Amino acid sequence: MTAVNKTRLKKILNELAGRGLEQMVITDPAAIFYLTGSRIDSGERLLALYIKISGCFLMINRLFPAPADPDIHVVPYDDTQDAAKILAGLTDNTRALGVDRNMCSWVLLRLMELGAASGYVNASVCADAVRQCKDEEEAGRMRRASHLNDRAMEEAARALRAGISETELAEETARIFRRLGADGISFEPIVAFGANAAEGHHVPDGTVLRPGDCAILDIGCIKDGYCSDMTRTFFLGEVSDRLREIYALVKRANEAARSVIRPGVPMSRIDEEARRIIRAAGYGEYFNHRLGHFIGIEVHEAGDVSAANNTPAASGMTFSIEPGIYLPGIGGVRIEDLVLVTETGCETLNAFSREITVL
Amino acid sequence: MTAVNKTRLKKILNELAGRGLEQMVITDPAAIFYLTGSRIDSGERLLALYIKISGCFLMINRLFPAPADPDIHVVPYDDTQDAAKILAGLTDNTRALGVDRNMCSWVLLRLMELGAASGYVNASVCADAVRQCKDEEEAGRMRRASHLNDRAMEEAARALRAGISETELAEETARIFRRLGADGISFEPIVAFGANAAEGHHVPDGTVLRPGDCAILDIGCIKDGYCSDMTRTFFLGEVSDRLREIYALVKRANEAARSVIRPGVPMSRIDEEARRIIRAAGYGEYFNHRLGHFIGIEVHEAGDVSAANNTPAASGMTFSIEPGIYLPGIGGVRIEDLVLVTETGCETLNAFSREITVL
Repeated sequence: MTAVNKTRLKKILNELAGRGLEQMVITDPAAIFYLTGSRIDSGERLLALYIKISGCFLMINRLFPAPADPDIHVVPYDDTQDAAKILAGLTDNTRALGVDRNMCSWVLLRLMELGAASGYVNASVCADAVRQCKDEEEAGRMRRASHLNDRAMEEAARALRAGISETELAEETARIFRRLGADGISFEPIVAFGANAAEGHHVPDGTVLRPGDCAILDIGCIKDGYCSDMTRTFFLGEVSDRLREIYALVKRANEAARSVIRPGVPMSRIDEEARRIIRAAGYGEYFNHRLGHFIGIEVHEAGDVSAANNTPAASGMTFSIEPGIYLPGIGGVRIEDLVLVTETGCETLNAFSREITVL
Repeated sequence: MTAVNKTRLKKILNELAGRGLEQMVITDPAAIFYLTGSRIDSGERLLALYIKISGCFLMINRLFPAPADPDIHVVPYDDTQDAAKILAGLTDNTRALGVDRNMCSWVLLRLMELGAASGYVNASVCADAVRQCKDEEEAGRMRRASHLNDRAMEEAARALRAGISETELAEETARIFRRLGADGISFEPIVAFGANAAEGHHVPDGTVLRPGDCAILDIGCIKDGYCSDMTRTFFLGEVSDRLREIYALVKRANEAARSVIRPGVPMSRIDEEARRIIRAAGYGEYFNHRLGHFIGIEVHEAGDVSAANNTPAASGMTFSIEPGIYLPGIGGVRIEDLVLVTETGCETLNAFSREITVL
């Protein structure tokens, strides 16, 4: 393990200790990557990192390459073996065991059947709390992924022309990211033209771009294991007064929210800062989602920027600020950036212009 | 619920009864689609179908559209509610509860905490056993998905030319499927040129096709909720004697395996039929994976065609037959088809030629 990984592990063990736990089984591939640097997708086969103060064990099927790391005791198994039983042999059955929120029930029920611990606790929050605050290495990767996203947005905007379909642009975006050297996309690009831009979870379809349409592009890539995510809204040929009005509001809401971010400010306060601008203009009901979500190794990580979350911002947190106004049958505007909380405020990871752009 | 869905539900309840269970919570979106016809991806939010003889309840977050079906009692909830607690209010806490193998531990631990049942059993096998044997409606969808795959393979093969990269061909494949009217791809296309074809889990990269190379194309699409999956191996310009030899062996192994399939024949026997041909020619160690996997709503469903599985074939089962020989540093050959077990033998769902093709 690198010094950075050891620090992360120690922080998670501290969080566990704070909840009276001395051991945890982590099965989330993103959390395992966070601690080991190895991204392993073992499909339906058990992959589990068992952590405790005295050591760290990785249960991995022999079909997959195991990390060569003197600090990680690799426990290989094959398809003929009862993987959960091997895992139960590692745990301390006289103490409670923390498990991931997404651990599969077949593993958990088998551990229980085998008496692997004195109790079982959903302890994901211990890993999540540590992962929320990025260290320097992570901050660097987040910056690079967002820098690629800025460049990809420029190229994607150039591809916006009358007659192109949403699916064509979505596929073009994937090619752009590849050309730019991204490892992949962090989510299926959301491309929505005209009235489709008012739909909450629009999936790109054959709809073609026409003069007067708005075009929402919500795209992101993965670089060195970390995700970017940005939205811009463009207009083709002309823009109606109504859409121009909501564009200006959304832009103000985005800027206002980013301007109040600093350590100690609750997530709910940041959400409110954007929401009150939109509400005051009479569009409150058309901003029908939370302001943002945490992001890092996964495009959606634990934590959000919403009225329901009073967690104070802390240095190193990265999340999205993405106000939007969606007018059914007409169109919508969303302007999304990623921010990294600093000691004194926040750094916006995206540099792409937020000025209204009529192509 | 359609009559078909009701029959499926009744079969699963019968399987549960055979194991002494009267109730089950299904969280697997594929199994929920199987029973309701609705494909819902609710991300980290609980989606659960609670089934028992007296009725069927669907717990769904209000953010997602619920099916309008008089046979399904929809139980909507929102983000401010404790979804697992609502679910625990539906279950019979005096009896054991079947749960999915992949139910998340946060749900299971919360149900346990609330005393939702007298015990908890991994009962996925009850749904899996029913899903393994496709009914007529499913068989029709499997045929259509594989027919699209045949046509896509023809177009993809035409795109094979010196200088094209693996990633370019993989992206072209996605476009081909879209043009042909598929709903999407069933897995990321595997495209492997030359020595890359010998790697077990090769991910397409910038490697370009050169004369003398083999090219493995392993592709599949989704049509009306059902998956296809087929592999063919092509050669550019010329083919070495060694690769020609293994191509002939793999083709024979594929044909031999398909020829023995009929109800009652164990999966292990089908695997052996292909394996002994390859072993007898001295390449046994280079065929380093199981012969096939079950497929349907998911590209990999419960069940495989391997030495470890003595389950007898039954009418309606659909699985892949995909022998391969992989020579490190040289290349590889895999020929994969999907089959549907019939009353008297099997129907091969793919019609694409298995003859050696030098482009």
